[in-house]
Amino acid sequence: MAQDHIVKSFDDELAKLTQAIAQMGGLAEAQLEASIQALTRHDPEYAASIVKADKRIDELEYQVGNLAVRMLALRQPMASDLREVVAALKISSDLERIGDYATNIAKRAIALVEAPTISTLYVIPRMAQLVQTLIKDVLDAYVAHDADRAMAAWQRDEEVDAMYTSLFRELLTYMMEDPRNIGPCTHLMFIAKNIERMGDHATNVAELVYFLVHGHALDQTRPKGDTTNVVVAPRAQTSAHE
Amino acid sequence: MAQDHIVKSFDDELAKLTQAIAQMGGLAEAQLEASIQALTRHDPEYAASIVKADKRIDELEYQVGNLAVRMLALRQPMASDLREVVAALKISSDLERIGDYATNIAKRAIALVEAPTISTLYVIPRMAQLVQTLIKDVLDAYVAHDADRAMAAWQRDEEVDAMYTSLFRELLTYMMEDPRNIGPCTHLMFIAKNIERMGDHATNVAELVYFLVHGHALDQTRPKGDTTNVVVAPRAQTSAHE
Repeated sequence: MAQDHIVKSFDDELAKLTQAIAQMGGLAEAQLEASIQALTRHDPEYAASIVKADKRIDELEYQVGNLAVRMLALRQPMASDLREVVAALKISSDLERIGDYATNIAKRAIALVEAPTISTLYVIPRMAQLVQTLIKDVLDAYVAHDADRAMAAWQRDEEVDAMYTSLFRELLTYMMEDPRNIGPCTHLMFIAKNIERMGDHATNVAELVYFLVHGHALDQTRPKGDTTNVVVAPRAQTSAHE
Repeated sequence: MAQDHIVKSFDDELAKLTQAIAQMGGLAEAQLEASIQALTRHDPEYAASIVKADKRIDELEYQVGNLAVRMLALRQPMASDLREVVAALKISSDLERIGDYATNIAKRAIALVEAPTISTLYVIPRMAQLVQTLIKDVLDAYVAHDADRAMAAWQRDEEVDAMYTSLFRELLTYMMEDPRNIGPCTHLMFIAKNIERMGDHATNVAELVYFLVHGHALDQTRPKGDTTNVVVAPRAQTSAHE
């Protein structure tokens, strides 16, 4: 009877944990979507509201952390129950970071209000859309304990990386064509990088779902499509900064 | 007697955990230093060796994760012992990310071999030096359980952010002065951003040391000196990408 009660309580707490993670995921996804809308609509008030709303995700991460530590301390879970708690802890960090990146995009959207021609680049909303779907899919996979679905999303992140690489090169050319594009394009580069990093965090979550279901870490390295860090820079023979 | 044995074993495992974290910290710090040397010396072979060496940090993170989960499962630690294990898990993630950023800098150093005049910007090595000291200090604070020392480092990250902001603006001006600087300066911007992010991860570790010592999370928001995401971009009236 007492045993029953304890087991029931652990399951209740686990349900609470999963629910908090799902809520964080929903918020992170919504924040990403909103930040891109603020960017494309040149709406600084909307962007400011996104910056504010990030607090809610931070609070949820804090709640997940507290709940997880309490569960470890009081319930002393084993095997798959233990994996549930550890995975939830790690997933909450990834979702918190995704929220931070959305906030950063919103802040840059405010800076870009005065740069209408550049900020409408169609690739950024498409990249964001793709990453939003990744976040949604890995979270659904988490709730359903569906490792295959998580791995399918994990694979698709390569597409995000490829989009980022092509966008990066495109932005470089705009910057070279007209120095007035340099400021806005720099922000757009960081926005694109933020979205690409969100995709990486979604793949982290996918790997945690794999770990949760299979009981061991994924033994594969993710295919990487982002090659911008090896783009060879044009030779700079003049030294403008001497 | 059996009780004694169990307690001793937990302490042994904890010592192993702390040692692995200290080793990760040492490696992360060394990788940062090396990546900046590869950059300033224009040494692509050295840079390539740094990219390879990151594997060791990843392996250590994996070891820490396995050990921590085993300790949670078999030892079922409580109170401060539990905090030790949870903090070690989180610190290892931060150090792994610092290693990733060093790898990214090394890759960009390879791309920048052909751009000697820009990559010698003196601010980057200074920023890196400062962050290296932060990493060293928070790791020493971790080993010594010295929350005050951790908090002193935590405060100093503001300086890193301020250096980043000024460097960012400086790089923008070089890009505007000569389009041939755009490629190299873009890499340098991302390198500077990587160093700034490493500083953020060092402050995360500092917060975990605080949590470890005091038993509750730090109830303060870190002063932020990075304001580059709100730098208002120059108006771009021409639309080079139409």
